[in-house]
Amino acid sequence: MGFLYSTAVSTLLCLAAFAVFSSHAADPEEIRDFAPPPAGTPLDGNYFTSTRLRNIRPVNQGAFVNVTAVNVNFFPALSGLGVSNALLVYPPGSVNVPHTHPRGTETLFIIEGTLEVGLIDTTAPVPVLFTQILQKDDIFVFPRGLVHFQINKSQKTVRAYASFSSTNPGLVSLPRTLFGVNVDIDVLTKSFQVSPYVIRALSARQS
Amino acid sequence: MGFLYSTAVSTLLCLAAFAVFSSHAADPEEIRDFAPPPAGTPLDGNYFTSTRLRNIRPVNQGAFVNVTAVNVNFFPALSGLGVSNALLVYPPGSVNVPHTHPRGTETLFIIEGTLEVGLIDTTAPVPVLFTQILQKDDIFVFPRGLVHFQINKSQKTVRAYASFSSTNPGLVSLPRTLFGVNVDIDVLTKSFQVSPYVIRALSARQS
Amino acid sequence: MGFLYSTAVSTLLCLAAFAVFSSHAADPEEIRDFAPPPAGTPLDGNYFTSTRLRNIRPVNQGAFVNVTAVNVNFFPALSGLGVSNALLVYPPGSVNVPHTHPRGTETLFIIEGTLEVGLIDTTAPVPVLFTQILQKDDIFVFPRGLVHFQINKSQKTVRAYASFSSTNPGLVSLPRTLFGVNVDIDVLTKSFQVSPYVIRALSARQS
Amino acid sequence: MGFLYSTAVSTLLCLAAFAVFSSHAADPEEIRDFAPPPAGTPLDGNYFTSTRLRNIRPVNQGAFVNVTAVNVNFFPALSGLGVSNALLVYPPGSVNVPHTHPRGTETLFIIEGTLEVGLIDTTAPVPVLFTQILQKDDIFVFPRGLVHFQINKSQKTVRAYASFSSTNPGLVSLPRTLFGVNVDIDVLTKSFQVSPYVIRALSARQS
Amino acid sequence: MGFLYSTAVSTLLCLAAFAVFSSHAADPEEIRDFAPPPAGTPLDGNYFTSTRLRNIRPVNQGAFVNVTAVNVNFFPALSGLGVSNALLVYPPGSVNVPHTHPRGTETLFIIEGTLEVGLIDTTAPVPVLFTQILQKDDIFVFPRGLVHFQINKSQKTVRAYASFSSTNPGLVSLPRTLFGVNVDIDVLTKSFQVSPYVIRALSARQS
Amino acid sequence: MGFLYSTAVSTLLCLAAFAVFSSHAADPEEIRDFAPPPAGTPLDGNYFTSTRLRNIRPVNQGAFVNVTAVNVNFFPALSGLGVSNALLVYPPGSVNVPHTHPRGTETLFIIEGTLEVGLIDTTAPVPVLFTQILQKDDIFVFPRGLVHFQINKSQKTVRAYASFSSTNPGLVSLPRTLFGVNVDIDVLTKSFQVSPYVIRALSARQS
Repeated sequence: MGFLYSTAVSTLLCLAAFAVFSSHAADPEEIRDFAPPPAGTPLDGNYFTSTRLRNIRPVNQGAFVNVTAVNVNFFPALSGLGVSNALLVYPPGSVNVPHTHPRGTETLFIIEGTLEVGLIDTTAPVPVLFTQILQKDDIFVFPRGLVHFQINKSQKTVRAYASFSSTNPGLVSLPRTLFGVNVDIDVLTKSFQVSPYVIRALSARQS
Repeated sequence: MGFLYSTAVSTLLCLAAFAVFSSHAADPEEIRDFAPPPAGTPLDGNYFTSTRLRNIRPVNQGAFVNVTAVNVNFFPALSGLGVSNALLVYPPGSVNVPHTHPRGTETLFIIEGTLEVGLIDTTAPVPVLFTQILQKDDIFVFPRGLVHFQINKSQKTVRAYASFSSTNPGLVSLPRTLFGVNVDIDVLTKSFQVSPYVIRALSARQS
Repeated sequence: MGFLYSTAVSTLLCLAAFAVFSSHAADPEEIRDFAPPPAGTPLDGNYFTSTRLRNIRPVNQGAFVNVTAVNVNFFPALSGLGVSNALLVYPPGSVNVPHTHPRGTETLFIIEGTLEVGLIDTTAPVPVLFTQILQKDDIFVFPRGLVHFQINKSQKTVRAYASFSSTNPGLVSLPRTLFGVNVDIDVLTKSFQVSPYVIRALSARQS
Repeated sequence: MGFLYSTAVSTLLCLAAFAVFSSHAADPEEIRDFAPPPAGTPLDGNYFTSTRLRNIRPVNQGAFVNVTAVNVNFFPALSGLGVSNALLVYPPGSVNVPHTHPRGTETLFIIEGTLEVGLIDTTAPVPVLFTQILQKDDIFVFPRGLVHFQINKSQKTVRAYASFSSTNPGLVSLPRTLFGVNVDIDVLTKSFQVSPYVIRALSARQS
Repeated sequence: MGFLYSTAVSTLLCLAAFAVFSSHAADPEEIRDFAPPPAGTPLDGNYFTSTRLRNIRPVNQGAFVNVTAVNVNFFPALSGLGVSNALLVYPPGSVNVPHTHPRGTETLFIIEGTLEVGLIDTTAPVPVLFTQILQKDDIFVFPRGLVHFQINKSQKTVRAYASFSSTNPGLVSLPRTLFGVNVDIDVLTKSFQVSPYVIRALSARQS
Repeated sequence: MGFLYSTAVSTLLCLAAFAVFSSHAADPEEIRDFAPPPAGTPLDGNYFTSTRLRNIRPVNQGAFVNVTAVNVNFFPALSGLGVSNALLVYPPGSVNVPHTHPRGTETLFIIEGTLEVGLIDTTAPVPVLFTQILQKDDIFVFPRGLVHFQINKSQKTVRAYASFSSTNPGLVSLPRTLFGVNVDIDVLTKSFQVSPYVIRALSARQS
């Protein structure tokens, strides 16, 4: 075969890695009742319990919501089970800044108070904003990856409880992500079509 | 090819349906922001809101929990998004009977009160029971498909909120499923190793 | 930014764990031909072969089916490949007790004999029982997570072969799970609406 | 904004279709117990039963295996449940030609007889062949997408039962696919590095 | 059973919808070779071909990239197959504004020119910015859901080709989403911690 | 319980492995932004960049395409993200031999030149061949697991860029897999229905 063969070999060698080593490979099925506890943690009822939300005290001054996540990092028994939660406490006047969860949908349940929420879809060229004023016991759904926010315009603290379709949905906080990491000012002035002065004003508050 | 060919054809014809029609086929990806509303339902903030849990009144007598599901059947905007919820109100002394969710994990968050819970794994030959007494703000996880139950042994109504890793996790209520559908009494006496008298006593309460 | 910033930091710190460590993370794709053998096991035709079902002898007395699973725990080459099997031998008069597989659908193929089967769905408030008498070469499907059982009412041993949509579908044996793990008797009496006497009769046979 | 805006609009219009219509969208979760029967088919035990494998008569002459698939096309209750089956009858001397299943893993269980099997992985530049002689009750696994074949070198008919990790795994029969569809002869002579005479000999048997 | 029963019924009725109707249900498996063409489209080689990227003319003035998507909306044969593409043409000085794809990862391949790119992760409280200057033939990966952008700082048009892990990954254009849909100015001033004057300057450019 | 119990125990012991150990278990969700770099590799913009395709020189003699894969084995940042790529350079007259990717769909984009492609589906008993002549900027989709090939019949080198729906789609090169691994000649003569002489001619070119 000679010459042709050597060409074939070099061609095929390029592809050899497809099958040979695969240190990142994993079984996509869930094949056990639950993940075993970390070494040293007993397997008893406490393993399936998170007390992380006990005695969350509302921080009643300041502009921002208080979020306490109960995801797989804090509650290892969730591993592989596809759901996690968080408690959100909104002092009067506070916001949950526009953000996305890159890996999950959120439903938000109002435990107490009245909360205004917004969700923006990906319609182009003009996205659509959906808003709602939620009262106690209402649920709002924020589909995966879409920008959303909340604001407490009332005089009372609002408490809400989030459910996610992932054990670790992630969080992209947009003010910080856009203006707090020193993105090239040319990118920002061209993208937002404003002067460097405006971008610097935005960046100053995120650094 | 003749004779061999005709054999091959009959063999292959048996397999022809593999590719030809596929009325049940579907795209396993989520490829849109969210499911569109049913015809006649406007696409606005209300579509993303469920008010189904407003004004759930505790039924304060009786042996059983009150469950109000907010799954995709009641909240179509959840479609394809992998999460749903339910509110559970437990009058004093009531139980949530042993059951499974065939298609999802549940986390249970205690809004108010004290609740005893149990979860049984699949260890063989003797499964393991995990129990816990949950107080306000605690979360317990019931991994998908495992038997679990709750009982309110306190004097006060308990309110809890469930999150599921599916928009429709399903419910197998075990007392009703085992003893309320006229399963052959031979199966039940042999399976539970008790007399027909005992099985009839159990069945009488589920019919 | 001062005061606002410190609030933002504390808020964001609550969320920091979303992205920082993720020891349970895994690749959801299958990205190799098959899982490599455990250290010390040669990679040859034997690795892809299970001989576990050779010479299964029917145990011809007693009330229960004999089940020999060929899942990923006994046949590591299945890892990540989404299918497993089991052989079931039913002596005359024996049952496969009501049970569920929390992580998979089962199809049951009758190799020899005649077998009665039952499947119960989740329709509420009254679930629906589906029964069938299967003969040699018939296949019955038990969808994932639903309660099902079999009984051999014939005079001959029945042999059947199960296929599962998971390499480890799990098994919840309901008599043992409900009555063999010392679940609080209050839960059981209230759930099954019978006297403690009945529950104790059931429990005595499972301990 | 004027000029810049019109550019942005044209740019964004290119992307508008991302979110607007999505007729192929579907829910990737299984959210029901099972698929409902087609209109006109009663929902009873028969719906969950396939009798397609009753009375399969071995065709005892000829070179090829007889395959009877019990996939979702013949057994609609399997829809969405992730498993299907087939019965294979191998007359003495017959082969199951080299083939792949593009959408599933297969386990093959020997009901009766002795069968030689082969599996070829994707190692490059030289793939690895794994062979085995299977006897009654043995199981062999053919991982998804890999080329495999069987031959009955015995004097007796072999019966085997296949389980697949898909309700419709598909079948690529390689002799027919390569040489029975009039692929450009230049492609075939260059790929197999043989003369047109050899390719025509191969093609003549597949047409 | 009387009174208890009626309670149980009302409880269970709440759950009845779990199993009864499921108009959104779908099969999560891909069970066919490919999606059939829409009615009226022949099934031939053209169905598997997209010519949408022929003769894309660079728009060489203006601030923004030109994007031509070849996703499932424009190329129906992709349906269910998990991959799509886009061509991006960057005139000198143009940007691809900070954005996310809510349903997919992107790899970007530089066909010609030199391009600066940025990616921001979700580390909290301070996300991390990763930048790179890409030349011809380089590939950069933007993991699913993370904010990213590109800028052509060169004097020559850049052409790049994107691959996505979804047939319809979606696009959240952040300047337009945040400042072009009339989000409540209180939310924006509190989130970005700037005066209404700054927010109005930003909004004016997006309306 | 005595005798019955010992039967039950032996029965259940057969199933014990379902839940007890599961060293292959893994979380099917992606729960992090991206896989961390291997030890010793800094986490910076270079980690997200592959320069593997720089300066690929066309090998302008010989019968075969040159393929340079940029999959997870060469670009670890792709891990878990569901997409990978390859560059294909076709000297005049060269082919990409008939092959399949067992774990992914491919889209092929023509960077320069004119290329003939073919795709064969699984219709039985006679599969369907789809062909096309692609020019610069065209995209062709090869659905997962289906046999396909390309040939450059022009006088000029063709360059094309492939996108896959997997970070490691695998490659089954059919000439080498069928005729280069010493498959039993009986299997091959019976499968292809040709004489041993023809099979030996084919095998000689693949060894």
